[in-house]
Amino acid sequence: MSDTTGKTITCKAAVCWGAGEPLKIETVEVAPPRAHEVRIKILYTGICHTDEYTRSGKDPEGLFPVILGHEGGGIVESVGEGVTGVAVGDHVIPLYTAECRECKFCKSGKTNLCGKVRTTQGQGLMPDSTSRFSINGQSIHHFMGTSTFSEYTVVADVSVVAVNKSAPLDKVCLLGCGITTAWGAVMKQNGIKGSTVAVFGCGAIGLGVISTSAIVGASRIIAVDTNPGKESWAKKMGATDFVNPTKLPEGKRIQDYLIEVTDGGLDFTFDATGNVHVMRAALEACHKGWGVSTIIGVAAAGQEISTRPFQLVTGRVWRGSAFGGVKGRTEIPGLVEDYLKGTLRIDEYVTHHRKFAEINEGFHDMHAGDCIRCVVDMS
Amino acid sequence: MSDTTGKTITCKAAVCWGAGEPLKIETVEVAPPRAHEVRIKILYTGICHTDEYTRSGKDPEGLFPVILGHEGGGIVESVGEGVTGVAVGDHVIPLYTAECRECKFCKSGKTNLCGKVRTTQGQGLMPDSTSRFSINGQSIHHFMGTSTFSEYTVVADVSVVAVNKSAPLDKVCLLGCGITTAWGAVMKQNGIKGSTVAVFGCGAIGLGVISTSAIVGASRIIAVDTNPGKESWAKKMGATDFVNPTKLPEGKRIQDYLIEVTDGGLDFTFDATGNVHVMRAALEACHKGWGVSTIIGVAAAGQEISTRPFQLVTGRVWRGSAFGGVKGRTEIPGLVEDYLKGTLRIDEYVTHHRKFAEINEGFHDMHAGDCIRCVVDMS
Repeated sequence: MSDTTGKTITCKAAVCWGAGEPLKIETVEVAPPRAHEVRIKILYTGICHTDEYTRSGKDPEGLFPVILGHEGGGIVESVGEGVTGVAVGDHVIPLYTAECRECKFCKSGKTNLCGKVRTTQGQGLMPDSTSRFSINGQSIHHFMGTSTFSEYTVVADVSVVAVNKSAPLDKVCLLGCGITTAWGAVMKQNGIKGSTVAVFGCGAIGLGVISTSAIVGASRIIAVDTNPGKESWAKKMGATDFVNPTKLPEGKRIQDYLIEVTDGGLDFTFDATGNVHVMRAALEACHKGWGVSTIIGVAAAGQEISTRPFQLVTGRVWRGSAFGGVKGRTEIPGLVEDYLKGTLRIDEYVTHHRKFAEINEGFHDMHAGDCIRCVVDMS
Repeated sequence: MSDTTGKTITCKAAVCWGAGEPLKIETVEVAPPRAHEVRIKILYTGICHTDEYTRSGKDPEGLFPVILGHEGGGIVESVGEGVTGVAVGDHVIPLYTAECRECKFCKSGKTNLCGKVRTTQGQGLMPDSTSRFSINGQSIHHFMGTSTFSEYTVVADVSVVAVNKSAPLDKVCLLGCGITTAWGAVMKQNGIKGSTVAVFGCGAIGLGVISTSAIVGASRIIAVDTNPGKESWAKKMGATDFVNPTKLPEGKRIQDYLIEVTDGGLDFTFDATGNVHVMRAALEACHKGWGVSTIIGVAAAGQEISTRPFQLVTGRVWRGSAFGGVKGRTEIPGLVEDYLKGTLRIDEYVTHHRKFAEINEGFHDMHAGDCIRCVVDMS
């Protein structure tokens, strides 16, 4: 047992005080975990567009002040009463998609969404409706149930999973969001082996979809991105074709182009952009009769997708995927093993590294076209 | 062999000369069937909203003059060269969704849509790009490859199926569209047994979805219609609940009401209205994580469906169904047997009868709230 057990820990955290403000490294107090809670020393964290979405103020449900971050890796410092899933010293990945194994959702066998901590997580609080973070007595909100932009964080015990200690946390932290989301979006669908696939958007998620589709054995993988620099990335991950929609003949829509070059459209398409117009193009690029389009990207508040219903009546399916449909506590340990065996790529995605003090620069990195993922070293 | 074989037949047909005009019974010449074509003496035909959609001029792809009708039953009068699927004297149902068993679609095993005659059917012509109907030398368009509002019609051999002669054609003609569409929309999906279902719209299609869901064993079937007169119809077909969305407390949306009364939403919903706003409500009434919404209704030209992508990302699936996903030549004979055995309802749907001379009154019947299907006696 660590000598901090049961005590409040004073440490550094990156706090966002208001919508649109840069993060500020502050000294915060992290209260000890209560029953069914886990306190984690975070060693590494990725930065994801969802963090930026809330930081920027575009998320209408964003709460401030807040400690962002949801793609972390760390070591369990202490656990509250009743915690059985992880133990002190375990290497763990916090999960923004909980897995309680008791609620209607978990027991349905049909979804990875869990209802147990959903409401309080959305309120930026722990399940007992209080926060473990404070600065001089002022409560700071949690974020996505994870808040990995802190040297220490507290999460619900249903929101964390232990993984093989031999895995480098500066890599497998990315299983907390991007890589897992992409992997699951492909693996949880039947029929991708031998089929044609188009992936819209070649960020970490899109590249992960390309990579997983290649591993599964898709017959053709068309990557679509407006950034020409992504062509080499896409091909490296397994894309057979790359299309830049801004380079098509004038007036030619990407969906019409794709239908032409694939003799009727794609068997599977994926949106990894979060742009609702791209989501429509991805659906309409599907083959009549059986094409399936999956939305992975998170759209801005208030934006809507639309299409003619005829697109669906003639056999296309429009669906989505959150955290890739993956049940984190059950499945992430296996993904870590896959990584250790060399059958799941992670290293390739880490293009940028930052010290904790430089976390705002990490956000800038993300906006640059050459960044796939920036990993922040919290030590 | 009938003595009309190889000769042009002069008979009565209901012709629509222009968008929005009533049908006019005319004397038409029906040319003999060419290779891979079948000439049919139509005995009965239903009237469906799709006929009205084109007649009214709302269908931007409508062509005139035209002989409408796509829900018919008749007897093969003669066949062209190379026809092997049906023979003279067979009782048959024309199929607006062909089944060639040779094209990419038919061979895919994933869809009932067939590509063989699609282009010319859309042009109101036979597969050789000519019409078999004329009046004083003026060519009249075919409709949906069937044109059942004529005493004699000619269809492609991939667009007709023979059925058990002991089945009454004034009933099984409805298998040409409505009943089959509803049956297939339910039967082609897994998991409806034991699940909750909501059906929006209680016309023939909606009632067919209710009836089939009840037969399959849905645990709860909520019928939704703005016409209070449909409650008894819906209950008779197997609905457990009936909701009139216009009677909800002010400001309460039907999807929010349904989510409340079902503890989270429906497992399956169906739109049988053709109204794009209802289609959205049907999707959003689905249970998070696994609800599946199927669009059956045909929307007016130019109209679009829309929703927040979050609805799909959180696990709802939006799909559609044309002719219920049913392969007509392969499956309709079995549906006729089911009807004869008493396991498929058809009689209940026939609320109105009209003589051929009264076909315009049949269209008026359809708009009256008490009509499910009007069957026209062509004799």
